[in-house]
Amino acid sequence: MDLKEYLNEKRIIVDEALNRFLPVTIGPAHELYNAMRYSLFAGGKRIRPILCIASAEAVGGTSDDVMPVACAFEMIHTYSLIHDDLPAMDDDELRRGKPTNHMVYGEAIAILAGDGLLTEAFRVMASPELITRAGAKRFRRVLEVVASAAGAGGMVLGQALDIRAEGKKIETSHMKIIHEHKTGALLRASVAAGAILGRGTDEQIDQIDKYGKYIGLAFQISDDILDIEGSTEELGKQTGVDAERGKNTYPSNYGMENAKTMLKEITANAVEAISGFDTKADILRQIAFYIMERKK
Amino acid sequence: MDLKEYLNEKRIIVDEALNRFLPVTIGPAHELYNAMRYSLFAGGKRIRPILCIASAEAVGGTSDDVMPVACAFEMIHTYSLIHDDLPAMDDDELRRGKPTNHMVYGEAIAILAGDGLLTEAFRVMASPELITRAGAKRFRRVLEVVASAAGAGGMVLGQALDIRAEGKKIETSHMKIIHEHKTGALLRASVAAGAILGRGTDEQIDQIDKYGKYIGLAFQISDDILDIEGSTEELGKQTGVDAERGKNTYPSNYGMENAKTMLKEITANAVEAISGFDTKADILRQIAFYIMERKK
Repeated sequence: MDLKEYLNEKRIIVDEALNRFLPVTIGPAHELYNAMRYSLFAGGKRIRPILCIASAEAVGGTSDDVMPVACAFEMIHTYSLIHDDLPAMDDDELRRGKPTNHMVYGEAIAILAGDGLLTEAFRVMASPELITRAGAKRFRRVLEVVASAAGAGGMVLGQALDIRAEGKKIETSHMKIIHEHKTGALLRASVAAGAILGRGTDEQIDQIDKYGKYIGLAFQISDDILDIEGSTEELGKQTGVDAERGKNTYPSNYGMENAKTMLKEITANAVEAISGFDTKADILRQIAFYIMERKK
Repeated sequence: MDLKEYLNEKRIIVDEALNRFLPVTIGPAHELYNAMRYSLFAGGKRIRPILCIASAEAVGGTSDDVMPVACAFEMIHTYSLIHDDLPAMDDDELRRGKPTNHMVYGEAIAILAGDGLLTEAFRVMASPELITRAGAKRFRRVLEVVASAAGAGGMVLGQALDIRAEGKKIETSHMKIIHEHKTGALLRASVAAGAILGRGTDEQIDQIDKYGKYIGLAFQISDDILDIEGSTEELGKQTGVDAERGKNTYPSNYGMENAKTMLKEITANAVEAISGFDTKADILRQIAFYIMERKK
């Protein structure tokens, strides 16, 4: 199947599911729900849910096996963007070509919209169908994978370290720790969760987890490159901000050419990690190249 | 058993468990963990975990059946306090007699400490022992109870409505909605979760849930009364702030004497809701009176 077609198709079913899990709400809750939905439906590519689905399919599962968890990843990712954009954090006014959440709803509601999305992600995971399909053991394992990747040993830690590193020259090893946590952990968890819920063997889960680790790193490097070489128009957000803020990036620490070489090598490693898989993993292979070559 | 002794004993085992679930951390994560622990160990009374334990005991369970969930409630409660105190929200400088989280760690880390505590609460719930003891069905039900009470249909909604109501004269019915969500939902969920995990029957769970609904309301009314009649010294936070901010409270909307009468009636309703329980529910009964009479 053509990757573009696959991404489109899955994006649509993920959007439909997100719309069911977090519907338009009337009554007292309408403003909070509007604020959550504003960022959730701001044109995200749904890369985490799609990775989760593709990973389930690679081990013989289906999107039905993972949908609540796939959506939980997108909700967690969206909350992290809302909080990252706050004046006390990165103070961004533009995200995906639209005003950031706090620019529209104010800081207080933006903080709460983030809190709401994060908590609702776990409510969505409490879906009876999910635990029935997965069984108690795989369900518990996925809950742990999601919460660990998102929490104070994962994404939240990455953001805290990133805040403290701003404007300082840091060791490359420390930059890697920041990226592994801030961007890598959730992407990696997306594919691991897919493999667990798709009923993969422990060996398959391990290999897909390794793939996810490389994918997370590749995603960060390509993000850093795009911040320099991409256009604000294509990306829907300001570019060149990393340098302006004195952020440590792969191009700034290694040079642009070395960063591009690393990106290629890491993509090859990702594909190598799942070399034992059959054609059902072709989409995962294509996604690896897609991340390497993406323009937005 | 004497209630004071009971509260002390349970507070100690909850503190020990919290300390295990969120330990002192060295290395890159130490600042974030320090910030989370600063608020988590700032002298909270652990009323939600204790309610959860007492409720499990009322149906024949033990603290071992509920400990990860009991601690999750305290972590969620603590995150909500950190975010509520932020400059963009209530802008408080003092909490439990100590500077608020953002006064010590700055706004960015305070936001992340809150995010971290909320996410870690769900990681703690992923404890293998919990799901093994509870079984998949009760475990799932509790996950849903916790996430629903804390999320955009529960506590987060209450906070959003409270922010929007500030400085406005609102209908008493709307004030009730705010309180049911902001304070009530999590307290109610604490006792419901305890009854579920303690292996209560559906009828027992319903009755305890009703008790929890009244307790949540009683807690809010007594909070409103203390804000007027309590001293900053005893409470460890500024008093008189509700009136200053034009917050709608039970005393402001009904008058102080009526508010006190309502508090007595609601406490009686709470005790009535569990009248079918044997002496194992005596602690729940005593806690109802304790909330009514508390001075801090």
